[in-house]
Amino acid sequence: MSLDITIALDAMGGDSGLDVVVPAAITAVRQNPDVQIILVGDEAKLTAAIAAAGASSNPHLKIRHASQQVGMDELASAALRNKKDSSMRVALDLVKDGVAHACVSAGNTGALMATSRFVLKMLPGIDRPAICTSLPSMTGHTWMLDLGANVDCNAEHLFQFSLMGSVLARAVDGNEHPRVGLLNIGEEEIKGNEQVKKAAQLLQAGIPNYAGYAEGDDIYKGKFDVIVCDGFVGNVSLKTSEGVARMIAAFVKQEFTRNLFTRFAALVAMPVLKAFRRRIDPRAYNGASLLGLRGIVIKSHGGADAFAFANAINVAILEVRENVPERITNRLRSYEENRQAL
Amino acid sequence: MSLDITIALDAMGGDSGLDVVVPAAITAVRQNPDVQIILVGDEAKLTAAIAAAGASSNPHLKIRHASQQVGMDELASAALRNKKDSSMRVALDLVKDGVAHACVSAGNTGALMATSRFVLKMLPGIDRPAICTSLPSMTGHTWMLDLGANVDCNAEHLFQFSLMGSVLARAVDGNEHPRVGLLNIGEEEIKGNEQVKKAAQLLQAGIPNYAGYAEGDDIYKGKFDVIVCDGFVGNVSLKTSEGVARMIAAFVKQEFTRNLFTRFAALVAMPVLKAFRRRIDPRAYNGASLLGLRGIVIKSHGGADAFAFANAINVAILEVRENVPERITNRLRSYEENRQAL
Repeated sequence: MSLDITIALDAMGGDSGLDVVVPAAITAVRQNPDVQIILVGDEAKLTAAIAAAGASSNPHLKIRHASQQVGMDELASAALRNKKDSSMRVALDLVKDGVAHACVSAGNTGALMATSRFVLKMLPGIDRPAICTSLPSMTGHTWMLDLGANVDCNAEHLFQFSLMGSVLARAVDGNEHPRVGLLNIGEEEIKGNEQVKKAAQLLQAGIPNYAGYAEGDDIYKGKFDVIVCDGFVGNVSLKTSEGVARMIAAFVKQEFTRNLFTRFAALVAMPVLKAFRRRIDPRAYNGASLLGLRGIVIKSHGGADAFAFANAINVAILEVRENVPERITNRLRSYEENRQAL
Repeated sequence: MSLDITIALDAMGGDSGLDVVVPAAITAVRQNPDVQIILVGDEAKLTAAIAAAGASSNPHLKIRHASQQVGMDELASAALRNKKDSSMRVALDLVKDGVAHACVSAGNTGALMATSRFVLKMLPGIDRPAICTSLPSMTGHTWMLDLGANVDCNAEHLFQFSLMGSVLARAVDGNEHPRVGLLNIGEEEIKGNEQVKKAAQLLQAGIPNYAGYAEGDDIYKGKFDVIVCDGFVGNVSLKTSEGVARMIAAFVKQEFTRNLFTRFAALVAMPVLKAFRRRIDPRAYNGASLLGLRGIVIKSHGGADAFAFANAINVAILEVRENVPERITNRLRSYEENRQAL
């Protein structure tokens, strides 16, 4: 089989280290025989790590040297200015130059956003990139954006997010009519703030599947396929969810390890608890898309393990197969044509 | 024992109905022998409901007739104008007139906010009321405000919230040094929006126990005793938490009812699962405080059952005992004196 898809992997970003990134890359190329991965970073270390994983002769793994690394706390502006040979920057350059189809990085989100924007540029008609990921719901999953790229958004930005989220739901899920919700609060008198109200008018007019306001709990109900909000609210909501899930997991563990009887109960319930854990495993949802760029960039969680990181690579592969940026452009163009025809 | 504390109960607000409100009132007066409750609403219905509950001769329960009811979807402004004899309004009037020490209502939040503000007025130095409640955490609980009263808040409002939240943590928990966190997002470059950054400066200068920025997951970690945010973010975060918890509960149930083996496991694990459920039971956290008013107003969840509603009444009783509004005033006064002394 020909190697149709090339993924550039920022191997030095994130806290995970090569003992996570390299096994993840090996898993991904095994699962996808038409994919090759260029691991970008310190050549000597990468060569050693690949050898240690017994994959030196794997033709699907390439190495591209980069002499620098962006720190997790480094300012985006500083990274952009001073780290022109960072693994992140070189990986993004490979996408820009057409050598790779997508970039995956677990690095510093701010730097990844800024560098992606600088190197790849925005799609025509999109003002800002948005971070989008899918979250588990009662009935499947819900796409949510923005998760932290944009602190303040106006109505037009929220409209663009809803358009991009719809394209992703269509491309990845094959869902032709994703129901789009606008995150809001349900207190009676005070339905939302000004930009949400204005965005609702834009969505009503321009998004055929706009399904109205969503509240926080709707993310997990499966009533909507895409939920749109500004990055501040989205990030708080995402982190809050992680916090609740982690606390509940800790409580379950505490209750099941309380005494001999509960330990026995845990033993009996183990397969059930495991099945349950698999269903809400955040690692299965790793890999957030930076939407709106002229290229595919996937952000992996900074502390991802190999299983989680491989999932992020798979998200990138899927978006390449589905040609997500072009589909966003087309969707926006047809929206603009419709608007002008009116 | 003398009846030291009187609670005015808006018996007709909310979706719960008298078969919830009346048993909750009976429970609360049984648990608090020095408390009497004035149930405000339709006299005939209340008399019948109290009789049906076998409490006609309970000297701790009184009835105050009110001919109207505020609808759950009614605009606050309309309720304020047209429902001057609503159970909500009459209950708040009882607090204003000094007949009752606190009001508990499960009614329409917007109307309750607006009517409370109109009837009771704000405390000196507080611009807006905030909705505050405690949420379970890994180590105890976290007070969070605002949960939806104020969509847009400036830095000064967030400062006032942090002050009120600290007073509540001190009064209710006896925690002399509550650690206050300001809810923010942790994306590297873009640490929060303008009002959060400004609020951080105010808190740094004026709140001795200000402990820095909190992220969404910190609500449940127990790293902070009080977390402050605007009402839009707070409401989304609260509802998101409910959504996650409900989804997880549904998944646990699904996994344990999948087949014969899992049903057996559920049987064995039942006491553990019940202990776990008790720990995250949202009903135990029912009863949000409308802080900043010249009087104590507690909002119960609209769909609360008798156990949950009784908890909301207990929150009111506790705030009466601890004299929360006066303590907020004192705290604010001493802050202002310190500021002027500088």
